[in-house]
Amino acid sequence: MTLSILRHPQADMASELRHLARDAERYGDNKDYYGQGGLITDFERDIATMFGKPAALMLPSGTVAQPMALKIYSQQRQGQAVLLHPSSHLLLHEAMGFEALWGLTGIHVGDAERVLTSADLKAVEPQQLQHAVALVIELPMREIGGQLPSWQDLQAQVAWARQHGLAVHIDGARLWQCPSYYQRDLAQIAALADSVYVSLYKDIGGIAGAVLLGENDFIAQAKLWSRRAGANLISLYPYILAAQRGLKDNLPYLPAAVAYARELANALATIDGVKINPNQVQCTMFHLHIAATVQQVESVRECYIASQDIEVLPRPRATVNGHSVCEITVGRNALSKPVEFWLAHMRACLARLG
Amino acid sequence: MTLSILRHPQADMASELRHLARDAERYGDNKDYYGQGGLITDFERDIATMFGKPAALMLPSGTVAQPMALKIYSQQRQGQAVLLHPSSHLLLHEAMGFEALWGLTGIHVGDAERVLTSADLKAVEPQQLQHAVALVIELPMREIGGQLPSWQDLQAQVAWARQHGLAVHIDGARLWQCPSYYQRDLAQIAALADSVYVSLYKDIGGIAGAVLLGENDFIAQAKLWSRRAGANLISLYPYILAAQRGLKDNLPYLPAAVAYARELANALATIDGVKINPNQVQCTMFHLHIAATVQQVESVRECYIASQDIEVLPRPRATVNGHSVCEITVGRNALSKPVEFWLAHMRACLARLG
Repeated sequence: MTLSILRHPQADMASELRHLARDAERYGDNKDYYGQGGLITDFERDIATMFGKPAALMLPSGTVAQPMALKIYSQQRQGQAVLLHPSSHLLLHEAMGFEALWGLTGIHVGDAERVLTSADLKAVEPQQLQHAVALVIELPMREIGGQLPSWQDLQAQVAWARQHGLAVHIDGARLWQCPSYYQRDLAQIAALADSVYVSLYKDIGGIAGAVLLGENDFIAQAKLWSRRAGANLISLYPYILAAQRGLKDNLPYLPAAVAYARELANALATIDGVKINPNQVQCTMFHLHIAATVQQVESVRECYIASQDIEVLPRPRATVNGHSVCEITVGRNALSKPVEFWLAHMRACLARLG
Repeated sequence: MTLSILRHPQADMASELRHLARDAERYGDNKDYYGQGGLITDFERDIATMFGKPAALMLPSGTVAQPMALKIYSQQRQGQAVLLHPSSHLLLHEAMGFEALWGLTGIHVGDAERVLTSADLKAVEPQQLQHAVALVIELPMREIGGQLPSWQDLQAQVAWARQHGLAVHIDGARLWQCPSYYQRDLAQIAALADSVYVSLYKDIGGIAGAVLLGENDFIAQAKLWSRRAGANLISLYPYILAAQRGLKDNLPYLPAAVAYARELANALATIDGVKINPNQVQCTMFHLHIAATVQQVESVRECYIASQDIEVLPRPRATVNGHSVCEITVGRNALSKPVEFWLAHMRACLARLG
């Protein structure tokens, strides 16, 4: 199997299913059934406890979870506008479902290439907020390399939202990475917000799925919308079992992965033609900005895998100022080798750019 | 394990996952990825071929599949109303998502307790059709015991819809049961409609999931809406593998199950206090209307399972004219014993009603 710098070890489908079969044995024949049954309700309770929220709802995807949360605020607060950073997943990767399907509208706040700040919020004209019901804060901000506002500024953002009568929703697809930087646990971070979405596959290594967290009446509303959206599936058990397994196998390594990511990024920054975004890595993820075209990077990446059986780079996901952007997420794979190992191989791979 | 009259044998979670692991081996590490990859595209192509439609889209649920289909017609034909039988799943079991989320409205056609007929359609006032874009035909009609219109009347319904510029969508959650009655294959039935939804767990015995079928441009639109609705999951492989397995293990038995269901229903109709809906069983399913309260039926059902380890009845799902309605779906479980066996046990169970 190719050695990779990215994420956690991932079993192939057959091995993964065999692992899950073993884990399933303790549940006997008690499949989850439309959200009912100990397998799913125990899991939701455990996640709710971890994030210090009264209730949680397992959903098939974040793309259904987040507009659903915002729709609930829209109905409660009688408006349809939500404040989104220009790099929000809702604006870039969901075919604008929050507008086209959920009937919401977006107010862009902040600059696409900078982390959201309370100053950005204070610059919003009051009349823009007339129909606004919620502020979405993504922690960490994926499109800019996993940047986080300072804890102090984050508190100021939340205070500003409260002052303006807005609900606060955390897009926490990768929130699992954040406790190290803030020196606060998941529940302390989640306490800032009315609702939080977390992904079950990105940092955790599950198969798919998401959890939406909030107050009891909020989650009761979410269950209704989940039914309406066709997200209340008859059975989710393979996804629940895979998430439970990922939480056990991968979550404990994230603090070490954050520390390692900082070291690794500092080392990789010494390579000519490579810049790191952000300068000071805050999470398990960061972006490499490589002075080469996407095609060139893809080509050396593939050659290196073919010749060395080592994946030091993912395929570039964007171009910024003529640089190709590659996202590194440190997990148990990178951790299995010293920083020097990856530095040497990254250097050798990128040397082929010529 | 309790012997059951209902459906197909179902493995417990651990065994099911182990079966799927074996099936997954031939795909190696090629998980499906946001709808891409041979595992999912081969599966969709196979289902499309089976139903004689150019394209198919795997989705997590029928509840997301059907309003999505109707939304596409709504946009193409610039109206928002859809014709639904009062017993439609969209009206009864989806918390009215087609209205509240998808922005559609329903025009009720036909009588809740009778199969939809072309006469019902011809009785619709023309001005009611002003904003109508599609007719939904459920085959078979689940809430009334799996009834079907005659082939001739079905053709007349479709002709009426075409005449009035309406798209025709088949709610085929259980369409797999219908070829016997119509003496036509799935593709011939699907050819009546612009689009068809089929379920992957009811007759087939998968874990969850649905397939939407139609023309290429229709499915291209559906993929966009699937992204918007959060139904385009990073991986669906456990559901795909389970559906493939169910198609292989269960689908071949459905014609025998239809023939058996007719015999079984005729036999059960001889029990005092039991009526069968419909009189002439047409599919693998039918309803028992039992002259007793829901509580009484639940009580004898549970006693019989506890004392005999045999499940002759599901829990009642409704009450009609003071009778409890129990749904029997014949599958490989019922087929494993002669009709006389189930008749004797049903008689013994219901005798306990006193």
